[in-house]
Amino acid sequence: MPKTERWQWYVEEFSPTEAHHHAIDEVYFAGRTKFQDVAVIRSASFGKMLVIDGDTQSSERDERIYHESLVHPALAAIDHRREVLILGGGEGATLREVLRCPDVARCTMVDIDGDVVTLSKRYLPEWSAGAFDDPRARVQIGDALVFLKEDGGTYGAIVSDLTEPLPDSPSHPLFCDAVFTDIKRRLAPGGVYVLQASTAGVHNMTLHAKMARTLRRYYRFVRSFYAHVPAFDNDWAFLACSDAVDLAAVQPSRIDDYVARLRGTSFFYDAETHRRLFSLPLYLRHELAKEGDVF
Amino acid sequence: MPKTERWQWYVEEFSPTEAHHHAIDEVYFAGRTKFQDVAVIRSASFGKMLVIDGDTQSSERDERIYHESLVHPALAAIDHRREVLILGGGEGATLREVLRCPDVARCTMVDIDGDVVTLSKRYLPEWSAGAFDDPRARVQIGDALVFLKEDGGTYGAIVSDLTEPLPDSPSHPLFCDAVFTDIKRRLAPGGVYVLQASTAGVHNMTLHAKMARTLRRYYRFVRSFYAHVPAFDNDWAFLACSDAVDLAAVQPSRIDDYVARLRGTSFFYDAETHRRLFSLPLYLRHELAKEGDVF
Amino acid sequence: MPKTERWQWYVEEFSPTEAHHHAIDEVYFAGRTKFQDVAVIRSASFGKMLVIDGDTQSSERDERIYHESLVHPALAAIDHRREVLILGGGEGATLREVLRCPDVARCTMVDIDGDVVTLSKRYLPEWSAGAFDDPRARVQIGDALVFLKEDGGTYGAIVSDLTEPLPDSPSHPLFCDAVFTDIKRRLAPGGVYVLQASTAGVHNMTLHAKMARTLRRYYRFVRSFYAHVPAFDNDWAFLACSDAVDLAAVQPSRIDDYVARLRGTSFFYDAETHRRLFSLPLYLRHELAKEGDVF
Amino acid sequence: MPKTERWQWYVEEFSPTEAHHHAIDEVYFAGRTKFQDVAVIRSASFGKMLVIDGDTQSSERDERIYHESLVHPALAAIDHRREVLILGGGEGATLREVLRCPDVARCTMVDIDGDVVTLSKRYLPEWSAGAFDDPRARVQIGDALVFLKEDGGTYGAIVSDLTEPLPDSPSHPLFCDAVFTDIKRRLAPGGVYVLQASTAGVHNMTLHAKMARTLRRYYRFVRSFYAHVPAFDNDWAFLACSDAVDLAAVQPSRIDDYVARLRGTSFFYDAETHRRLFSLPLYLRHELAKEGDVF
Repeated sequence: MPKTERWQWYVEEFSPTEAHHHAIDEVYFAGRTKFQDVAVIRSASFGKMLVIDGDTQSSERDERIYHESLVHPALAAIDHRREVLILGGGEGATLREVLRCPDVARCTMVDIDGDVVTLSKRYLPEWSAGAFDDPRARVQIGDALVFLKEDGGTYGAIVSDLTEPLPDSPSHPLFCDAVFTDIKRRLAPGGVYVLQASTAGVHNMTLHAKMARTLRRYYRFVRSFYAHVPAFDNDWAFLACSDAVDLAAVQPSRIDDYVARLRGTSFFYDAETHRRLFSLPLYLRHELAKEGDVF
Repeated sequence: MPKTERWQWYVEEFSPTEAHHHAIDEVYFAGRTKFQDVAVIRSASFGKMLVIDGDTQSSERDERIYHESLVHPALAAIDHRREVLILGGGEGATLREVLRCPDVARCTMVDIDGDVVTLSKRYLPEWSAGAFDDPRARVQIGDALVFLKEDGGTYGAIVSDLTEPLPDSPSHPLFCDAVFTDIKRRLAPGGVYVLQASTAGVHNMTLHAKMARTLRRYYRFVRSFYAHVPAFDNDWAFLACSDAVDLAAVQPSRIDDYVARLRGTSFFYDAETHRRLFSLPLYLRHELAKEGDVF
Repeated sequence: MPKTERWQWYVEEFSPTEAHHHAIDEVYFAGRTKFQDVAVIRSASFGKMLVIDGDTQSSERDERIYHESLVHPALAAIDHRREVLILGGGEGATLREVLRCPDVARCTMVDIDGDVVTLSKRYLPEWSAGAFDDPRARVQIGDALVFLKEDGGTYGAIVSDLTEPLPDSPSHPLFCDAVFTDIKRRLAPGGVYVLQASTAGVHNMTLHAKMARTLRRYYRFVRSFYAHVPAFDNDWAFLACSDAVDLAAVQPSRIDDYVARLRGTSFFYDAETHRRLFSLPLYLRHELAKEGDVF
Repeated sequence: MPKTERWQWYVEEFSPTEAHHHAIDEVYFAGRTKFQDVAVIRSASFGKMLVIDGDTQSSERDERIYHESLVHPALAAIDHRREVLILGGGEGATLREVLRCPDVARCTMVDIDGDVVTLSKRYLPEWSAGAFDDPRARVQIGDALVFLKEDGGTYGAIVSDLTEPLPDSPSHPLFCDAVFTDIKRRLAPGGVYVLQASTAGVHNMTLHAKMARTLRRYYRFVRSFYAHVPAFDNDWAFLACSDAVDLAAVQPSRIDDYVARLRGTSFFYDAETHRRLFSLPLYLRHELAKEGDVF
């Protein structure tokens, strides 16, 4: 009988001059962990969303674009996929994608915020889709940097799902020489270090370019790739770093073979999508070719 | 460590061209009862708020302005305060104010939505402040119209806290001759029927004037009064109807005596406030003097 | 044929947690004077609006509530109305109201921002309604403080339409002993100094109370009064200061006589409205009775 | 001195549950032509923007992504570029891109709204960049459908910059058999018809797929391609239709040659960008492969 009005909104401010407003259908959880403000909501347009410190982390409607991009180009490119390491990735979707590959014998995931893992299991089970219960999953709650220092293993792929090093962000100090050296030491020969690497949108690609410049000092091949993730309102970029493999030059047939052997169904990624991801528009190539400061 | 951003907002749309945005600190409850969409939130500026069907019902910061205005001018004016009837008023704050008067022997409250009463007890205990446990309180969950028809009692004051009869609103049919007649039949001699009666703001006072015109057909004295309630973003109006008492002419000394005997402390109302409430600005008197249609 | 959508909005932020959104029908002017950002718009709900530095200054729909309150209680109360001084008031509506009184022989208005006067003449002619062309008007563009120092005249009423002394606001330094002394020196015997004096809303009345406390050091009678001005989303307060007249005690018959002689028609003010303005709710009287710091 | 606040916002509503808010720095023009509501503003994030009927048409920051995508893949693919026809395209940026190609001897542009052309020349000169003064430009103000019927010429490329056929939109009737037949009749042998074709975002690609299905009835090759245009908050799609050329199979070397001969500098498009544009993600290929209704 009574009118139903949209009274509750999630407002994501990108800057003081830009914001995206999403009508909220339901708030599953809103609170503070030891590390961050966390909310799990359902928006009318994007379905369930994980919001951390006011920023969209992933949405039901398009999280597969992000997570398939983060994981599969790297795994398709490498030969030795038995051991994979994920830094961050508390929702469990990165883990889910890694474990879709039958060659993976063990996937270690280290996330500092155990509450995000717990909340994701409860409210976002579609993200992990059972991956936390996979016997190949080794989930550790703790500081990724400490893990990298203390762990003795090596990994065919190291997948970093950490926040990008924005000025004043807690992850800013993590983007430094000591960490790069630790990561590289954990990378098996022929391995790939892939990381989410800020935005590649036409008006905010400088941080990504600076990350790329920095990592070129450590690796022979540093490739940018990106996908538009609607819930982020942005082109989201990644970097694939390796001394052995150039991800922009992986053969389509190799990708076809890799994808064909994945468990479950893919939504976004295959050989044609790989070609899209690594074919960069002119303006981004210009930006990446610029000299500039590094971390 | 991480920045804390305002991501969650309550947007109250007054019309397609006007809205008030309130940052939300916490959502205590959001759901649907049998009758309406109900939310209990805490906003940064107004404290706890009850929101029904997207409209603010009352706020912690200023609910006493509304509830003291609704109850005390009428009770101060009448001689026989033993029996009081409240129509609606699920939050319990109208009941609280009525029971502050020691002359009240029994206060009957009839609200159709038992879930609102339950939610208010749990999340808004400051509103009822124990009133639901007062032995003088008789709370009935049911249709006020049915109650009015079937009940045999009479009341010194009948206090209507029902929604105003907006077109297309569920309370529109309640504002009709049959109901007026039932209410008048339940009013004890010398009694006052007081109701919340929409807005008296300079750009939306026509519904109030129409309500006043309508009730003037039933009562000798029909007085408009209003207070600005910040959480409503509006001047909120009431009507006091009686064949015996003119609320605009109550002696200040009588009000002083009445207020002095109230239990607890008042926030808004006393003799000087009464004078403010019933002293109407010129434009509102002009509007109220106009001829026009009735319900 | 094509749909017409509301794409342009005026957002007034009251704090980081509260904002009012108004759909804009037309922007007449938006720019920067030597002193401030000025916009003249037409909103769907309030008609034409003057916006300075992002804050609503007045709206077509309700500016008469503000300007009649600022001018007429003071003029009604004093005996000698020949000379009136307005500080600020660039829109011309304060001048308009003063000149409605036939006893005023000359009204001096001093505003620092000549561009606001020019813009108001062009875009808001309803505000001044010809007052700038009245031979009794003496409009000076300049610093009110300098004028007060250099001018040799005295005034039966001094009406201050200046911004309130918010911290960090340019008018903060104007609220100091030197200025109070200058103003008092310009006040004729029996005169009244009236000023707009911030808000008296239930959740933001401390600045008003501090202004009142401060002025009580200079005048025998310092009366608060306020009206809800919808376009301000707030109860707007004024202070009437005098050593001779208590504005809260002016006889209704005196006000009736005063109002009857005004030219044109009044919208808001008369003796009954005066009673409303000066009858303060309990909570505001409590706030005004508190000890506290002064300017 | 005074604070400068963001008071003026452009709100683009994508649906009742989603909106993007842009702070406005300046409004150059806002009014109504014979056909539509038109505004030219400057936003803080996107620079100048053209807004028609509440929807972003193009922005200074990224219009080249859209206009280079609309024009160059088609021109690169065809052999005979002497005659090009643009339907719509009032801002002049499509014309600008066509005329960058030295092989074009004449570019005819037909737009129904002469006021948009005039406004664009005055306020958005960066869009046309002199193209309206190029002797090869033939600009006609009129109905594109009438032109198609009456014109006797044929064109190597027909570029449609018309609004997509949303239900209830004025361009809905333009997407029909009669028009398709007229367009095809104006296409020279070996020619390409390219059109902007709604969105390919993961949650709103059904209209694009329906447009593609419809056009497959008329052409041997119908290729979808898209680019993320940040100011549109969406992946924007195009369709390239031809009986002679498959735009997804154009040789990179041919594109390199084409681009090298363009006048001025490109921002977005070259052979690598072409590869990105025509490499579609899995979910979009699935959507395009579905059976379904047609126009």
